[in-house]
Amino acid sequence: MPHTQPGESMRAEIHQQPGVLAGVFDRRSDLVGVAATIAARRPRFVLFAARGSSDHAAVYAKYLTEVLLGLPAGLISASTTTLYKAEPDLTDVLYIAVSQSGGSPDLVEATAAARARGALTVAVTNTPGSPLTEVAELNVDIGAGPELAVAATKTYTATLLTLYLLVDAVRGGDAAAAAGIGEVAEAALAAEGVEAAVARLRFAERVVCTGRGYSSATAMETALKLAETSYLSARAYSGADLLHGPIAALDATTSVLAVTSAGAGGAAMAEVLDVVRASGADIVAVGSAAAADLPRIVLPTTAEEIAPVLEILPLQRLALELSLARGRNPDQPRGLSKLTRTR
Amino acid sequence: MPHTQPGESMRAEIHQQPGVLAGVFDRRSDLVGVAATIAARRPRFVLFAARGSSDHAAVYAKYLTEVLLGLPAGLISASTTTLYKAEPDLTDVLYIAVSQSGGSPDLVEATAAARARGALTVAVTNTPGSPLTEVAELNVDIGAGPELAVAATKTYTATLLTLYLLVDAVRGGDAAAAAGIGEVAEAALAAEGVEAAVARLRFAERVVCTGRGYSSATAMETALKLAETSYLSARAYSGADLLHGPIAALDATTSVLAVTSAGAGGAAMAEVLDVVRASGADIVAVGSAAAADLPRIVLPTTAEEIAPVLEILPLQRLALELSLARGRNPDQPRGLSKLTRTR
Repeated sequence: MPHTQPGESMRAEIHQQPGVLAGVFDRRSDLVGVAATIAARRPRFVLFAARGSSDHAAVYAKYLTEVLLGLPAGLISASTTTLYKAEPDLTDVLYIAVSQSGGSPDLVEATAAARARGALTVAVTNTPGSPLTEVAELNVDIGAGPELAVAATKTYTATLLTLYLLVDAVRGGDAAAAAGIGEVAEAALAAEGVEAAVARLRFAERVVCTGRGYSSATAMETALKLAETSYLSARAYSGADLLHGPIAALDATTSVLAVTSAGAGGAAMAEVLDVVRASGADIVAVGSAAAADLPRIVLPTTAEEIAPVLEILPLQRLALELSLARGRNPDQPRGLSKLTRTR
Repeated sequence: MPHTQPGESMRAEIHQQPGVLAGVFDRRSDLVGVAATIAARRPRFVLFAARGSSDHAAVYAKYLTEVLLGLPAGLISASTTTLYKAEPDLTDVLYIAVSQSGGSPDLVEATAAARARGALTVAVTNTPGSPLTEVAELNVDIGAGPELAVAATKTYTATLLTLYLLVDAVRGGDAAAAAGIGEVAEAALAAEGVEAAVARLRFAERVVCTGRGYSSATAMETALKLAETSYLSARAYSGADLLHGPIAALDATTSVLAVTSAGAGGAAMAEVLDVVRASGADIVAVGSAAAADLPRIVLPTTAEEIAPVLEILPLQRLALELSLARGRNPDQPRGLSKLTRTR
């Protein structure tokens, strides 16, 4: 990308998000047909197929599915199809493939195979006409517009919101939790504390991101953003999984980003944070329920199921500014391209 | 533990594994009743519930389920039950809870809820009479004997083998892939290259573990072992996921442990390793198909679906010896106890 400053694309796309999200919300009636088809087919089980940031969107959607739709859900490994030629019976299965590019060959092959095995297949992409949209029975376009930076930002949040609106439409909801999302996203993007967090993480080498429930997706996406743009050794764990082993690796040389929004997931982080504090790790809390006695980035309070759309916004800014502070170009992570082809 | 040397328990338990695994294989007829009940109930979907090392055993079992049984499978988050009170319809679902202690309150609550919601529940534990075994409809005892070291070793491999034998029994197999497992495990434990790998990783701070397919479970378990015992910032990615973002964080300061066994998963690692080599990272290959031009730990060749039982053995030795070399006590990781109680 000639004639651009490092991070210019990522910065522009981060700040497009309030408008993009408002647009996704305003176009929610476009989802009615797909939602009605899903509801009419009465799926018994939901499978998600995705990689990278889209995989974190799928983790979020898995919670939505289990909690809001009351359906068991799982994340598939494309490799069971592409490498091992598994042939499961997918009758009564709703199979949702999530990919901004719609182009990774393994997802395309696995989705085509799922359709052939009886699943109702839905492609959620930012790329109408991509190979994935051609093999899926139903299509949902997140409509985020072209994304130039390799690190996904607006396609991630647009995917989250689209999946929320789709699940909500399947259950016949009125999308109330997402009303005014554009304005709320604007406020979340402007949250105070990002600059201070950048300074705190300037020299960090060990970063652990953690959250529970819906917000575990935010922890995963934050770790990936930091790894992609600042090349940090950033790991993510659900708060409960952190206590089952990895907590031993936390000490005063570790920086912890803890996502705690209002609701059951954030409340359950209290016991996790007690243990993290005892480890001596540095902590920055992010979310609408971030503890006042910690360095924090406070977000507007929303329904818990919509919080992940907002939590990631200041964390994307953190990833961008930290990358620049450390002398990297977040628009062009080494070794990556916008479309990753795996088989 | 007075009067013991650091690592004494973990070392003893690592070396008990050939005998433990031979015992699990010899007692495989104990699984016939549970397998027959599962087969008779004709489950449509399989859900696994687990945390920590058991979660990695569940990842392995998810591949077995999809590939060998042809059933879609997923890993549940206990928090959808314990935090969000999700009430999915679990008719026709086989729900397998995996936990060496059988004591974590969230798993117990989620398993009881799954049974109440119609699932056929099976507890796979090392602790008969534990709370988990009391709430599950069916029980499988892995019979690994008491495990004193906090870092799971023999309970991990005994769980893998038990899950393989259970899945194989459900499909009416003859367990041929696991015949002679005790002797093969003895050879795997004695594999050359562990000491050299310890020296290579002595000063490493950034470690990435990767594998594909069945072996992705080995990568996850290795990262956890290294984090628990050497406090390393160790991350695990499936080979395909690594290429979708985290590869950017790999450079000459990163150590990569790549699991490559004979079969489709190991073969698919070739393209991953090409990219990893280009990043400048240090690489140690582990498995029956470890490339000859890399520093490596070569294992006996087995059927691919049984390889994870063996791959982890020299990697447990690596974790133990690396922890000691770095001045830690692998038997007593800071901040951990043998039974982690999460809700």
